[in-house]
Amino acid sequence: MFLAEVIGTVVSPVQHPALDGERLLLLRVLQPDGSPAAETRIALDRAGAGVGERVLVVDEGNSGRQLVGRKDAPVKTVIVGVVDYVTLDGRLTYDALH
Amino acid sequence: MFLAEVIGTVVSPVQHPALDGERLLLLRVLQPDGSPAAETRIALDRAGAGVGERVLVVDEGNSGRQLVGRKDAPVKTVIVGVVDYVTLDGRLTYDALH
Amino acid sequence: MFLAEVIGTVVSPVQHPALDGERLLLLRVLQPDGSPAAETRIALDRAGAGVGERVLVVDEGNSGRQLVGRKDAPVKTVIVGVVDYVTLDGRLTYDALH
Amino acid sequence: MFLAEVIGTVVSPVQHPALDGERLLLLRVLQPDGSPAAETRIALDRAGAGVGERVLVVDEGNSGRQLVGRKDAPVKTVIVGVVDYVTLDGRLTYDALH
Amino acid sequence: MFLAEVIGTVVSPVQHPALDGERLLLLRVLQPDGSPAAETRIALDRAGAGVGERVLVVDEGNSGRQLVGRKDAPVKTVIVGVVDYVTLDGRLTYDALH
Repeated sequence: MFLAEVIGTVVSPVQHPALDGERLLLLRVLQPDGSPAAETRIALDRAGAGVGERVLVVDEGNSGRQLVGRKDAPVKTVIVGVVDYVTLDGRLTYDALH
Repeated sequence: MFLAEVIGTVVSPVQHPALDGERLLLLRVLQPDGSPAAETRIALDRAGAGVGERVLVVDEGNSGRQLVGRKDAPVKTVIVGVVDYVTLDGRLTYDALH
Repeated sequence: MFLAEVIGTVVSPVQHPALDGERLLLLRVLQPDGSPAAETRIALDRAGAGVGERVLVVDEGNSGRQLVGRKDAPVKTVIVGVVDYVTLDGRLTYDALH
Repeated sequence: MFLAEVIGTVVSPVQHPALDGERLLLLRVLQPDGSPAAETRIALDRAGAGVGERVLVVDEGNSGRQLVGRKDAPVKTVIVGVVDYVTLDGRLTYDALH
Repeated sequence: MFLAEVIGTVVSPVQHPALDGERLLLLRVLQPDGSPAAETRIALDRAGAGVGERVLVVDEGNSGRQLVGRKDAPVKTVIVGVVDYVTLDGRLTYDALH
């Protein structure tokens, strides 16, 4: 799992019924201190996330299919939660409420 | 999943019946803003994509086999859609019609 | 498997029952000599690890599900042990007791 | 899948019957224009490839096992074809006959 | 698969019966010419390898479980052979007997 920020959306007709109507979000991978990493990803949303929110992401095929609830879904990267807070070396480095 | 641009084709007899007659396309991985990343890949086409088009790509073995429709296909990277548009930080950064 | 140091925690409601009540720890990947690598990860804890401890981590989906004991858990990265000691080229480079 | 050039061989007794008598080839990963990438790999040969030839490689466990024809084979990287030609941005960048 | 040199050992109680009594070795990944790459890994030993030896390593979960002989083992990286020799561009670049 990794931390990321939702930075945008992708719209594309996907050639598989398991992905009909799914939202595809663009993510920027984050360091634990909140600074951006170089990588970006495209993920399915299972947590009702919006642009600007910090999210927890699972990046493994079988996990993605469990989360989508279909064994035949062609998915790998899924947003599983909107992050409440992060501590690093005992300090609070992110708090969704502030 | 990731965004990519189709940049070419590869022709090679592949030693597995599940891949007979499949088109193999060369992809350049893209950043969300459309700038090229360093990586390239070879993918099967499931979206009727052509050179120069922007595509959505799944890069996981079991997903690839679902898309090809054969459990025994030796595939990992499959083009699942031609991208319509991409938004980044609220701005439209790609639009296939313009 | 790789070596890592626990550097923090992440709190996020995760949308899957198999992860209810699980602790998510922030890890910094380590070189064998104990110096930090650039990468960080988020892992489930199966070894009772705390911030500052050196741990052994498995990073593969099916292994993670075995460790969690549920075939349907969306997990990939799991802490499997707190490290006792490490030798490198015949020298002891880490010893948890000193 | 990716493109590679066969650059050498590895000889090692492997502790699994599914790999008895298999040839292990050293590969250098290639860019689509034929220039070398930094990475190298070791692969099983399923295409009768020789040193100096350009090959198409699959790099995923379940695909590798399909190609070897045994569900229990510990393989991930398999050469699936000797490349005939490659086009990039409409130009022919590789042709095995010339 | 990749080539590596055994550079050390890790001792850690691992929370899974399938790993009881297994030796965990520290590896440095090698280039085909024998020069060290930046990466290190921790692997199970299935070839009786010792510190300083050059080994062949499989790095995929299902392959690792085949080699360990248990479907429920949380392993990914396994040493499958001690290397006898390596040729690169027709030259012998490593020979275990010299």
